[in-house]
Amino acid sequence: MKKLKGNLLYGQSGGPTSVINSSAYGIITEALKHQDVIDDVLIMRHGIQGALNEDFYYASKQDPEQIELLKHTPGSAFGSVRYKMPELNVDETDYIRLLYIFQKYNIKYFLYNGGNDSMDTAHKIAEYMRRVDYEVRVIGVPKTIDNDLPHIDHTPGFGSAAKYIANTIMEINADMYAYPKGKVTIVEIMGRHAGWLTAASHIATKEGYGPDLIYLPEVPFNVEKFKQDVRRTYGEKQQCLIAVSEGLVNEEGILVSSASALKDAFGHVQLGGVSSKLAAIVNNEMRISSRRIELGSIQRAASHIQSLTDVEEAIQVGVKAVQYAVSGKTDVMVTMKREAGEEYKIKYGHHPLSEIANIEKRIPESMINEAGNGLNDEFLDYVLPLIQGINHPVYNNGTQTFTKLKK
Amino acid sequence: MKKLKGNLLYGQSGGPTSVINSSAYGIITEALKHQDVIDDVLIMRHGIQGALNEDFYYASKQDPEQIELLKHTPGSAFGSVRYKMPELNVDETDYIRLLYIFQKYNIKYFLYNGGNDSMDTAHKIAEYMRRVDYEVRVIGVPKTIDNDLPHIDHTPGFGSAAKYIANTIMEINADMYAYPKGKVTIVEIMGRHAGWLTAASHIATKEGYGPDLIYLPEVPFNVEKFKQDVRRTYGEKQQCLIAVSEGLVNEEGILVSSASALKDAFGHVQLGGVSSKLAAIVNNEMRISSRRIELGSIQRAASHIQSLTDVEEAIQVGVKAVQYAVSGKTDVMVTMKREAGEEYKIKYGHHPLSEIANIEKRIPESMINEAGNGLNDEFLDYVLPLIQGINHPVYNNGTQTFTKLKK
Repeated sequence: MKKLKGNLLYGQSGGPTSVINSSAYGIITEALKHQDVIDDVLIMRHGIQGALNEDFYYASKQDPEQIELLKHTPGSAFGSVRYKMPELNVDETDYIRLLYIFQKYNIKYFLYNGGNDSMDTAHKIAEYMRRVDYEVRVIGVPKTIDNDLPHIDHTPGFGSAAKYIANTIMEINADMYAYPKGKVTIVEIMGRHAGWLTAASHIATKEGYGPDLIYLPEVPFNVEKFKQDVRRTYGEKQQCLIAVSEGLVNEEGILVSSASALKDAFGHVQLGGVSSKLAAIVNNEMRISSRRIELGSIQRAASHIQSLTDVEEAIQVGVKAVQYAVSGKTDVMVTMKREAGEEYKIKYGHHPLSEIANIEKRIPESMINEAGNGLNDEFLDYVLPLIQGINHPVYNNGTQTFTKLKK
Repeated sequence: MKKLKGNLLYGQSGGPTSVINSSAYGIITEALKHQDVIDDVLIMRHGIQGALNEDFYYASKQDPEQIELLKHTPGSAFGSVRYKMPELNVDETDYIRLLYIFQKYNIKYFLYNGGNDSMDTAHKIAEYMRRVDYEVRVIGVPKTIDNDLPHIDHTPGFGSAAKYIANTIMEINADMYAYPKGKVTIVEIMGRHAGWLTAASHIATKEGYGPDLIYLPEVPFNVEKFKQDVRRTYGEKQQCLIAVSEGLVNEEGILVSSASALKDAFGHVQLGGVSSKLAAIVNNEMRISSRRIELGSIQRAASHIQSLTDVEEAIQVGVKAVQYAVSGKTDVMVTMKREAGEEYKIKYGHHPLSEIANIEKRIPESMINEAGNGLNDEFLDYVLPLIQGINHPVYNNGTQTFTKLKK
């Protein structure tokens, strides 16, 4: 294997998670162990946009204790971006600019941390650099709370979000049962196309505090069946806790949150997200009082209740990305496979980026209950190992300490 | 002091907190130390309603480990209620029924755990029993996340909610700064008349992750000033994080969340809570994209990030309530006074219930900044001691363990 000596360029892209910065930690600390080939780690500010603008952080300039704090800092500490690189055959401008930057800064390793779209970006860059014969090793570092990447058991970021959601649902449920007669409480959870995060609410069931009903984008939504479900549960318990995915679609494949998907009994279009619409149905058509809770961006940022397993895996995908790059791999994403057997164990590997970009992994039918309004034990067996362990926050006077980076 | 021998009747009332069950823990464990006078602790299911219905839990029937778990269980473990006792001069029915129940179950101590309304209930019961010459010692046990009771430095429940809010605001802020150009993010926080909880968002400022603007019910809301504030902040930072109290009122004293308080530029009434209304103004009138986050019931139920100080104080107000009752006090609420000096120290005491019921303590002007859109260091000095320490949750397989009680 020929030694390739130069700088490593790293960037974060897409929606933040509470552990993406743990992957940055893994990459930076592992790169330091390969000083024979890696001179420094340059980190793009706001992902690929930072590369195009020559806007970098340098790992060598950061305080070691601030690098440590990356493991406790949510959001994208170096900035993220939603920038779609043009198709190679359509417009080469950005790629030509990138080639110039790579040459100028002697970039020999390019590590990109994100979900589907980011893997697409990484793959296109790998392809372009191959065409123009510029030697650079491109590795995708997986990350998304949505858990929707293919060829990987689960994605870093999902476990911590799942842990937050499961514990929060328990708390909402405990709070709800304070009063003898309750409301229909509808909790809206992230996930545009796959219901993994909404499904995570089911974990609370093992303690007796789960939702009564769970509606996933994987199961076409039928409003009459929904009303039946709610009526039965509320009739029995005088309470009803519902977890619903923001990406719920009706039987015509239209997003329930979109303007025209549902009308109320008077033919009025209902505004707002999916939980607003369902709450309006319960209030106006079923005459049961309802309230809605949107977990919002907190579910991907809740660093105060991270899964230690998730943090450690996020670090490892970073470490492996550097190792694979140094050992000559390129145009691949780091993967995690669950080994067979009783004990939970992950084997790291890699898979061609071309087969990952733009493919979404959804919840398999076998994990969904027969009625289509909940999960089963197969899902629980899959998800429980991912939320284990506590990554104790670094508290200072009652609040967390996040990293402070130098430009 | 004459010994009064019989049962202790305890109940929870009003909105749950994440530490009200810690007060129950304090009462039950302290009562056990006074077996010469207290035979058993009966706990009303759903507060006073449980008494009227003879629906009780018995402390003697509970497993000791489940009593321990009360310190980690949010919500009102024994059930709460919002039942307003009629005025004594108007309708005595409930009081006559209560007297019968007190006699039947030999109730000699009555401890009621709640906020303003609950203290009102306790006071009325004390007065009635005095009139009919039934000897029972009535003690109010303070609790409310709203921190709005008079004659007490702060209320149990507030510190944990404040800690959750401060840390969550930090996370929302870190998440928000991922993208180069952001939105106006409006976080709606509980508190109908007093802004203490909304003010708690200011704690995040000490780490550089606080809201840019904070709007409290204590400061009359002016929509033009709001637009100026937002325009200035967003102009400078391309981001703006706002914390707003659900109880915000305009200059005419009308709730901003009420239907008619604000109209958009076209004269349309804006529906929804206060954050919906402000978001609509930012979107439609200022043409800046905005999003809203309602913290909802999670802020009073977040047992996974309790303040240990708060938990310990909640236990102590329970302990003191039993001690005061046994020592002959009645018709008082347990109070906490902050002692002078550098070190934070609380001195417990008591105050007549008659002077507590129906009085609301709001944030003093001296803690609010000059512009009326934030807090100052006096507030920070007041609030920081209340969020200290970690009450480590009892995790089982990644989720919390709550108490299981026997009927």
